[in-house]
Amino acid sequence: VEVIETPWGEAVPVDAIGDALKSDTNQAFKGVLLVHNETSTGVTSDVAAIRRAIDDAKHPALLYVDGISSVAALDFRMDEWGVDLALASSQKGFMLPPGLGLLGASPRALERVETARAPRAFFDLRDHIADGFMPYTPAMSLLFGLDESLNILLDEGLDAVAARHHRLAEGVRAAVKAWGLSLCARDPRTYSDSVSAVMLPGGEAPRVIERALSRYNLSLAPGQGEVAGKLFRIGHLGDLNELMVLGALSGVEMALADCGLPVEPGSGVARAQESFRAAG
Amino acid sequence: VEVIETPWGEAVPVDAIGDALKSDTNQAFKGVLLVHNETSTGVTSDVAAIRRAIDDAKHPALLYVDGISSVAALDFRMDEWGVDLALASSQKGFMLPPGLGLLGASPRALERVETARAPRAFFDLRDHIADGFMPYTPAMSLLFGLDESLNILLDEGLDAVAARHHRLAEGVRAAVKAWGLSLCARDPRTYSDSVSAVMLPGGEAPRVIERALSRYNLSLAPGQGEVAGKLFRIGHLGDLNELMVLGALSGVEMALADCGLPVEPGSGVARAQESFRAAG
Amino acid sequence: VEVIETPWGEAVPVDAIGDALKSDTNQAFKGVLLVHNETSTGVTSDVAAIRRAIDDAKHPALLYVDGISSVAALDFRMDEWGVDLALASSQKGFMLPPGLGLLGASPRALERVETARAPRAFFDLRDHIADGFMPYTPAMSLLFGLDESLNILLDEGLDAVAARHHRLAEGVRAAVKAWGLSLCARDPRTYSDSVSAVMLPGGEAPRVIERALSRYNLSLAPGQGEVAGKLFRIGHLGDLNELMVLGALSGVEMALADCGLPVEPGSGVARAQESFRAAG
Amino acid sequence: VEVIETPWGEAVPVDAIGDALKSDTNQAFKGVLLVHNETSTGVTSDVAAIRRAIDDAKHPALLYVDGISSVAALDFRMDEWGVDLALASSQKGFMLPPGLGLLGASPRALERVETARAPRAFFDLRDHIADGFMPYTPAMSLLFGLDESLNILLDEGLDAVAARHHRLAEGVRAAVKAWGLSLCARDPRTYSDSVSAVMLPGGEAPRVIERALSRYNLSLAPGQGEVAGKLFRIGHLGDLNELMVLGALSGVEMALADCGLPVEPGSGVARAQESFRAAG
Repeated sequence: VEVIETPWGEAVPVDAIGDALKSDTNQAFKGVLLVHNETSTGVTSDVAAIRRAIDDAKHPALLYVDGISSVAALDFRMDEWGVDLALASSQKGFMLPPGLGLLGASPRALERVETARAPRAFFDLRDHIADGFMPYTPAMSLLFGLDESLNILLDEGLDAVAARHHRLAEGVRAAVKAWGLSLCARDPRTYSDSVSAVMLPGGEAPRVIERALSRYNLSLAPGQGEVAGKLFRIGHLGDLNELMVLGALSGVEMALADCGLPVEPGSGVARAQESFRAAG
Repeated sequence: VEVIETPWGEAVPVDAIGDALKSDTNQAFKGVLLVHNETSTGVTSDVAAIRRAIDDAKHPALLYVDGISSVAALDFRMDEWGVDLALASSQKGFMLPPGLGLLGASPRALERVETARAPRAFFDLRDHIADGFMPYTPAMSLLFGLDESLNILLDEGLDAVAARHHRLAEGVRAAVKAWGLSLCARDPRTYSDSVSAVMLPGGEAPRVIERALSRYNLSLAPGQGEVAGKLFRIGHLGDLNELMVLGALSGVEMALADCGLPVEPGSGVARAQESFRAAG
Repeated sequence: VEVIETPWGEAVPVDAIGDALKSDTNQAFKGVLLVHNETSTGVTSDVAAIRRAIDDAKHPALLYVDGISSVAALDFRMDEWGVDLALASSQKGFMLPPGLGLLGASPRALERVETARAPRAFFDLRDHIADGFMPYTPAMSLLFGLDESLNILLDEGLDAVAARHHRLAEGVRAAVKAWGLSLCARDPRTYSDSVSAVMLPGGEAPRVIERALSRYNLSLAPGQGEVAGKLFRIGHLGDLNELMVLGALSGVEMALADCGLPVEPGSGVARAQESFRAAG
Repeated sequence: VEVIETPWGEAVPVDAIGDALKSDTNQAFKGVLLVHNETSTGVTSDVAAIRRAIDDAKHPALLYVDGISSVAALDFRMDEWGVDLALASSQKGFMLPPGLGLLGASPRALERVETARAPRAFFDLRDHIADGFMPYTPAMSLLFGLDESLNILLDEGLDAVAARHHRLAEGVRAAVKAWGLSLCARDPRTYSDSVSAVMLPGGEAPRVIERALSRYNLSLAPGQGEVAGKLFRIGHLGDLNELMVLGALSGVEMALADCGLPVEPGSGVARAQESFRAAG
């Protein structure tokens, strides 16, 4: 396994992956695994570009995508982008309690199952696709919920779902800008439409997060790893509309101001409202 | 039955009631019935003052209070204020689906049941208080819910519940003022802490209500009777906190602006945030 | 109001009603009110025969039917039988929690609303039928449930629902006969298909009811009024099938035997099974 | 891995396991894995005896127990029996929807985690026990349910839970005997108290299972593997009481009789009732 490090706040480096594959002349790599939407930094990577890099390298590696916080929220095109394995879960875009992992496999991935030599038991795909039945007792209540979630998502239309997430995210980003803060994601083309990680200089993030929860019942996620203590995250995916986002933004503003940060209450909300109204 | 008209936007006229009782020398009136919190105008009347007026007139009339949108949300003191019959319902302060009416009766009211000559059947209180059992099959699922609601309310504390409603209402009123609009309620001492009726000159209210619902999924109630078409109402009671209120206010602002009213988006939210932050 | 007493265990006396109407030459009676299925005795009366008696007397009285434990369980034909007002409730055949009363009115009944001089307020039908809206906040959660109940009932088919209740009731009656006991209902043509009241000589009923509940978690209803202490009742309506009935019958048998009654365990279950198997 | 085959209908062979361990002089075996209660045959094995066999062989192998259909239903003593890893799941004794696997580990098992060299990722116990938090998003709704299940089970008392399962199973076995049929489990000491597998000679089992489902809405499980087509299974664990068992038994009787088997309806129910009444 070769890990190609992605700097915090940046998208998965397409060129580095392409170079690694070109250097792999005896095709030791079996697959390229990336996170489509990085939840801890709010960065969305370009899956289609990775596929092109694999193809340009004429490498047979499969393309594995962790789509936990992207599938059913962001634009995700398994077939068109040539994704071989895509992983999602019930508690994000599918708007359910956690407990289900959802795996999509391409025909090519299913062929590899036959020749793969990794030891496997519970997760052997052949058992799961054999005849339409599940080999082990599944989480039935969540499957019934998934059936309903899919109805809701398809009624709205997947394109409309992605457009809504983009519209809501644009409002969040307008607010962040109004507050004079910046996102962890460096390149606007990589801004995530399902989560925004907001940098807070000076180590104030933990206090803001604590204040938001204790005073306003607003749960902001903290930074992890290298950015621990340096940011807070606003999630914006799933069963969500403009007013819910504005309620959350108003809470962030108050928590920031309560902690002495130079943020004008109402300023971010006003810019987000402007963004939402301009979007129709 | 004598109806003492209350002008729209005003509280129940204490003096007029006192005068009527004083004139009723042969004590024909059996009771005085008032609405504590008038949902269609956002006006809260002074129940204790009505009781004093009855007592000053040395009249034996009972005091009946419609507390549908006040009990379990506003300060309500059945014993201290000398209320004889108080009516509440499950879907307001008790935070349940509709379906339960709740009636409290004073010892004096129960005595009158014995001598009253009005025909009665289903609602005969004697059947309901006989032995702790209900005479007819009650709405069991709502009674179980009520048990839980009471736990939640008593855990928070009734004083804290009333204080929270006041705090949230103050924020709403700060926003209304920032928008340059006025409430239907004329006297600040009568402002309701569970609902605010906002006057909109020029017949714009129906358009704003329609826009709020169709674009922002925000349900504002319309005016009724004399104020039909002249106001919209923001309800603020029950399971509610600051961020929910701010989300709703942000939606009102956008709907107002979308309809061409001279309201600066963010202005009301900012004043409400200020109010909430000042309140602790 | 003239009350025509129905002896315990008998159906509503058609002839007595006909005679009363014939004697009422100045048409003082406005309506005839009867209980279709008497829950406390397990007797079903002949609604169509009452209608014929009214018509034979050439009397304009309306026909009011309490169908609480019959509608959506037994055969009930409002139009064909000439019922003017039919009352049902959510917690019986409609398989919901209690909390909804359902009232059906004939065109003739609605005409009478206009000329009736009884004082009315909450229950004024004109408010309820005005424009498809409910005049007061209804029990929304139960209305959503009712929508689903109606889907379930209409999917099964109302004829099939009635046939199922008859089939299940026949099994219960076969068991009662096997136990050497008799029903409160005297005439087999009046046996109720939704509840069976089983006579227990010697004052044993309360002990059997207590034993069934405390040892087998089986809730049997006691007798009321004249038959208090003399019977126990087995309800068999709603979301119910053969195995649920047999489970209940097996519990009754054990409770009877535990109380020293000469009942052979398994005897009633065996006869009920025979009845169910013969029914297909 | 050495698999010691257990003949269908028999308990795990204690002696064979003891012999295998004694022969394993260089201690290649890391653990002994057995199924406590074999769901497909209704056989309960003697976990404590396996532990004694391990100890007698002076072998350091850990004892792994699949307790899916035994924990929270049958007597299960992790500490007293020296179980090192015990596996349970939400949908059996814990009375929840499926979706949770529950793993208990002994201190000795946790020590081995440190020295084990098997590749591991998701299931690395160290991540799960680190600090009381779960390393991955767990199935929250089921965890809340588990909290309530544990309250219910501990309120009843684990000894009472096991006693109830035994009492109910004794009733089922009395019925099977009355039908002239025999269990798959050969030795009465190994009869399972949570499921009974009933042998049906002559290949009738699939027809009986089909009849029970289509006519009586009763779901009986089929045989698997070597006993496919030769038996049907009655599950009796979880939220269950006497009358539910008797309802199920009455359905089995009818299905058997409907398929032409020489079973007297009511005969099994009567014997089960006798068993239940004798048990108090």
